[in-house]
Amino acid sequence: LNPDYTKRIGNFGFLELEESWGDEATIINTARISTTNKRVNSLDAFTDKERTLLHYLLAHNHGTPFETVHFRFRVVAPIFVLRQWMRHRICSFNEFSQRYRMPITAFYVPDQEARTVDGFEVLSQESVERYCELVESMHRFYHDEYQQVCTRIEAAEQAGLVEKTAGSRNPYRARARELLRNAMPVSTYSDLYWTINFRALMNFFELRRKANAQYEIRAYADAAYEMFCKKMPLLGETMNRVLEERAKMGEQA
Amino acid sequence: LNPDYTKRIGNFGFLELEESWGDEATIINTARISTTNKRVNSLDAFTDKERTLLHYLLAHNHGTPFETVHFRFRVVAPIFVLRQWMRHRICSFNEFSQRYRMPITAFYVPDQEARTVDGFEVLSQESVERYCELVESMHRFYHDEYQQVCTRIEAAEQAGLVEKTAGSRNPYRARARELLRNAMPVSTYSDLYWTINFRALMNFFELRRKANAQYEIRAYADAAYEMFCKKMPLLGETMNRVLEERAKMGEQA
Amino acid sequence: LNPDYTKRIGNFGFLELEESWGDEATIINTARISTTNKRVNSLDAFTDKERTLLHYLLAHNHGTPFETVHFRFRVVAPIFVLRQWMRHRICSFNEFSQRYRMPITAFYVPDQEARTVDGFEVLSQESVERYCELVESMHRFYHDEYQQVCTRIEAAEQAGLVEKTAGSRNPYRARARELLRNAMPVSTYSDLYWTINFRALMNFFELRRKANAQYEIRAYADAAYEMFCKKMPLLGETMNRVLEERAKMGEQA
Amino acid sequence: LNPDYTKRIGNFGFLELEESWGDEATIINTARISTTNKRVNSLDAFTDKERTLLHYLLAHNHGTPFETVHFRFRVVAPIFVLRQWMRHRICSFNEFSQRYRMPITAFYVPDQEARTVDGFEVLSQESVERYCELVESMHRFYHDEYQQVCTRIEAAEQAGLVEKTAGSRNPYRARARELLRNAMPVSTYSDLYWTINFRALMNFFELRRKANAQYEIRAYADAAYEMFCKKMPLLGETMNRVLEERAKMGEQA
Ligand SMILES: Cc1cc2nc3c(=O)[nH]c(=O)nc-3n(C[C@H](O)[C@H](O)[C@H](O)COP(=O)(O)OP(=O)(O)OC[C@H]3O[C@@H](n4cnc5c(N)ncnc54)[C@H](O)[C@@H]3O)c2cc1C
Ligand SMILES: Cc1cc2nc3c(=O)[nH]c(=O)nc-3n(C[C@H](O)[C@H](O)[C@H](O)COP(=O)(O)OP(=O)(O)OC[C@H]3O[C@@H](n4cnc5c(N)ncnc54)[C@H](O)[C@@H]3O)c2cc1C
Ligand SMILES: Cc1cc2nc3c(=O)[nH]c(=O)nc-3n(C[C@H](O)[C@H](O)[C@H](O)COP(=O)(O)OP(=O)(O)OC[C@H]3O[C@@H](n4cnc5c(N)ncnc54)[C@H](O)[C@@H]3O)c2cc1C
Ligand SMILES: Cc1cc2nc3c(=O)[nH]c(=O)nc-3n(C[C@H](O)[C@H](O)[C@H](O)COP(=O)(O)OP(=O)(O)OC[C@H]3O[C@@H](n4cnc5c(N)ncnc54)[C@H](O)[C@@H]3O)c2cc1C
Repeated sequence: LNPDYTKRIGNFGFLELEESWGDEATIINTARISTTNKRVNSLDAFTDKERTLLHYLLAHNHGTPFETVHFRFRVVAPIFVLRQWMRHRICSFNEFSQRYRMPITAFYVPDQEARTVDGFEVLSQESVERYCELVESMHRFYHDEYQQVCTRIEAAEQAGLVEKTAGSRNPYRARARELLRNAMPVSTYSDLYWTINFRALMNFFELRRKANAQYEIRAYADAAYEMFCKKMPLLGETMNRVLEERAKMGEQA
Repeated sequence: LNPDYTKRIGNFGFLELEESWGDEATIINTARISTTNKRVNSLDAFTDKERTLLHYLLAHNHGTPFETVHFRFRVVAPIFVLRQWMRHRICSFNEFSQRYRMPITAFYVPDQEARTVDGFEVLSQESVERYCELVESMHRFYHDEYQQVCTRIEAAEQAGLVEKTAGSRNPYRARARELLRNAMPVSTYSDLYWTINFRALMNFFELRRKANAQYEIRAYADAAYEMFCKKMPLLGETMNRVLEERAKMGEQA
Repeated sequence: LNPDYTKRIGNFGFLELEESWGDEATIINTARISTTNKRVNSLDAFTDKERTLLHYLLAHNHGTPFETVHFRFRVVAPIFVLRQWMRHRICSFNEFSQRYRMPITAFYVPDQEARTVDGFEVLSQESVERYCELVESMHRFYHDEYQQVCTRIEAAEQAGLVEKTAGSRNPYRARARELLRNAMPVSTYSDLYWTINFRALMNFFELRRKANAQYEIRAYADAAYEMFCKKMPLLGETMNRVLEERAKMGEQA
Repeated sequence: LNPDYTKRIGNFGFLELEESWGDEATIINTARISTTNKRVNSLDAFTDKERTLLHYLLAHNHGTPFETVHFRFRVVAPIFVLRQWMRHRICSFNEFSQRYRMPITAFYVPDQEARTVDGFEVLSQESVERYCELVESMHRFYHDEYQQVCTRIEAAEQAGLVEKTAGSRNPYRARARELLRNAMPVSTYSDLYWTINFRALMNFFELRRKANAQYEIRAYADAAYEMFCKKMPLLGETMNRVLEERAKMGEQA
């Protein structure tokens, strides 16, 4: 695991920038098709001309060249975070399924910082402990029940009452997982791949790094932002400049 | 509530086809711009020519005319159903937020039919009762804690320790709701508006009415399908014919 | 033709706002599902609260409620304008096809205003006349050749050399149209339906009413904008306010 | 130029598969997150299990894993071909602009094969020659006029009648290009980058390699298809199998 592109978030969360495709040179080259046949071979060949153009394009909403750079992240996050995340449609998700597998037996536990707003402890340590006990009882319920169902299914199979099907697609066990999932809280961790181009990623950063985004998704958005900035420092700076320019407007509005 | 366009689903779920825009005549008229200036005034003016064209367009994947007909549904469904639903990106969602409000105090309880696969009772009535108790304890936890936090916030406000902010945006209460949501199970009901065009709706029907879709989302997809068929019977029949033609292929594959 | 929602543009162009779906009340109601069960019955029931919320949502990029209002326009425009227009992807087009029909025998002729930039006549009247003659010769070429091909096809049919196929799908005539289209200039008018939601329409207005958009598409964007503002004055004003707020930022950048 | 990934098409057209991102292993790995933690390191590690899964996913419309593989093509094609191409929305285009540059002085000339349908010569060699003369006169018109405008602008600049602006953004020359473009036929070549994921590319192949797609776009779609199959033979074969299975259905319909 490359520490530049992986990060633990919260008590069990994880983010990794697995791969990216294209860079600032791709943006400049695809943009320049409009105006000239001049191409740059790589980012190293950038002069002020290219840097100025990069900012100009982004600031003036010439968005399509920014769709040529892509990223794939691996995300382990609680379901309530993913619920917000997956509202973003201009990207692709591939997620762990509780239909085909048992839930991940880990759930989000807010730490001191997460529980505190402006010095005021919103949720106490004792409350969190009660919460943990409850969620653990949910997990125990799931596992006990699943165990029992599996035993009953086996018995029924042996008695010839139901047909025997191997693997994760056994319809009775599959249905048991679907039914028992009902008890799982939205703090349960899930796991996914996220593939997104830079234009849409910037929209994600704008919406999910803002103060009004929820603390927990902000932590992921900030981590993704940092990895992105390490991977493409020039594009990162350019984006920051544009976002700051836009933010000034926000204050006036 | 018009019984043709509303339906209760499961123990607390609900679906309503609130409004639609356009109909088979819109499809024919927008499609015909390619080939002729002939327009039909309304569905009543349809002859076999129009009906044949409608089927031809759909069967041969001339999809864009089918994007001119839109629907808006109101959906009350458990979060785990909505998690599957909201993976569909070519449409718009507006959802109830547990950040701004307390959760809906209703959760999905699978009935006899839902618990049974091919005559085999996957989850027993007793298990469901244990599940209900557990979920209720989660809800109690949420409400008790929230009560306490609110009392503590008020005290702190009165003591001048934190600033007083009115309304649902009070940052301490807002954070309390965010933190306590962690305990809510994915069976908790939520509430949303769904706006979608026919082309994307048909894709939804294809994916979510199939046998391999989960029972619970299938119930919603089937209900949406029935409402749609009542609203636009000719388009419904045409779609069925095309889906059957495609299904035949599926069997052979 | 309702003069409020139709407009002639250039020498042969035309724009019509045929229909819309939803209004400011739809936006408020779908947005409010997040926070409250309060709904307004119609725009008439709006108070300052609703107006403030409408502006707040738009200014802070809460975009999805604005996807619930839709528009369908009929557009007659030159191909070079449509080439720019059809780059917008979050919407649906249904266009006249030169594969199935002969081209519209009308082409764009820039008038005095279109030919002049800041008082400087970029293209003279005489140049425009030469242009018209050339384009007319293209049209004559198309029609003469098409006539001849049709005669040759008929002869071949009668001689039993090719099979007789009726209608616009006759493969030889169809191919003749495809081949002769090559000579048609991008100033040739075409005809289409455009279905788009308000969020995407606002993006179109932002990009295509700006000074750096081409004069000819600006004329259409401005006309669409005026029709939209007549149809939904409150949303129009709200949008203007937000765009002005953003423009201020643009100047600083 | 790598002959495997470049091709001349028609008299001046060109296609290049510049780069791709991800491969069959990416698809399997992102898909498997649903069901297992097992990943394959690369395509070389594929067994029948992976090949079967690949086909299963594609045949059963599990589409999102196929959105993790991307392609960037360079395309030189006539405008009428690009007009059809750019109707595909789930992808990104960056195109040469006649607003910023003079048109490419090359236009499509249908060869013998293109002019012939089932042995019948739809357009004769003489007709094509007349067409070429006409188009050439269009190009001459453009260049003569542009020359004259530029001379007039220079004169006006020197006389202090208009302000001097350097570069391609000179507003008078820019407007001249916009106005003169009107005379350019849709057979004029243009130049673009096309970035698309595999799911959307497959949709493009389905629609644009079919017999009812126009001959000229089919040539590009076929070339893109061949390059794709060379790059990812296993995915190519899998797609072919699925398309054949679907085609069988088409015949019955
Ligand atoms: C602080 C915050 C609070 C929120 N609260 C709520 C809430 O209470 N309830 C709720 O339901 N949601 C809420 N959301 C989610 C929000 O409505 C969006 O669904 C989410 O932020 C994704 O944003 P997006 O649509 O810009 O992104 P994407 O879906 O990724 O779209 C990217 C861009 O593509 C364009 N686009 C994509 N699809 C369409 C389309 N169909 N029509 C027009 N344009 C389109 C838009 O320009 C958009 O900016 C909240 C989001 C934030 C950040
Ligand atoms: C039975 C079943 C099991 C599933 N299991 C899992 C699972 O285990 N894990 C998991 O993550 N998901 C799972 N899914 C969800 C699935 O992967 C899709 O996200 C979901 O079905 C939405 O389908 P869609 O992409 O066709 O719809 P939409 O997102 O509404 O898209 C509609 C159409 O638009 C096109 N389209 C839209 N966006 C793109 C794009 N970015 N690139 C290319 N084409 C695009 C496609 O043609 C698509 O058919 C499952 C779905 C079903 C039905
Ligand atoms: C003045 C001007 C000059 C131009 N010059 C050129 C030129 O020289 N060459 C050229 O090729 N084009 C040019 N364009 C076209 C431009 O690049 C866009 O294709 C066009 O303006 C459509 O804008 P859009 O992508 O915002 O709109 P839509 O495609 O309708 O998208 C709406 C919104 O959805 C989101 N979105 C949709 N699809 C994606 C995606 N795949 N990835 C990320 N986000 C997405 C974005 O937020 C976007 O704003 C020019 C446009 C203008 C206004
Ligand atoms: C033989 C042929 C003849 C044609 N004739 C004409 C004609 O006469 N007139 C004309 O106007 N066009 C014509 N077209 C163009 C056609 O209508 C489509 O615009 C084009 O083929 C792009 O296809 P698409 O929408 O599937 O692709 P994309 O736009 O790339 O979309 C990919 C997939 O995403 C989904 N999708 C994307 N956007 C939406 C949306 N807004 N709503 C619902 N689903 C969406 C769909 O599942 C779609 O299959 C023709 C096309 C062909 C192949």
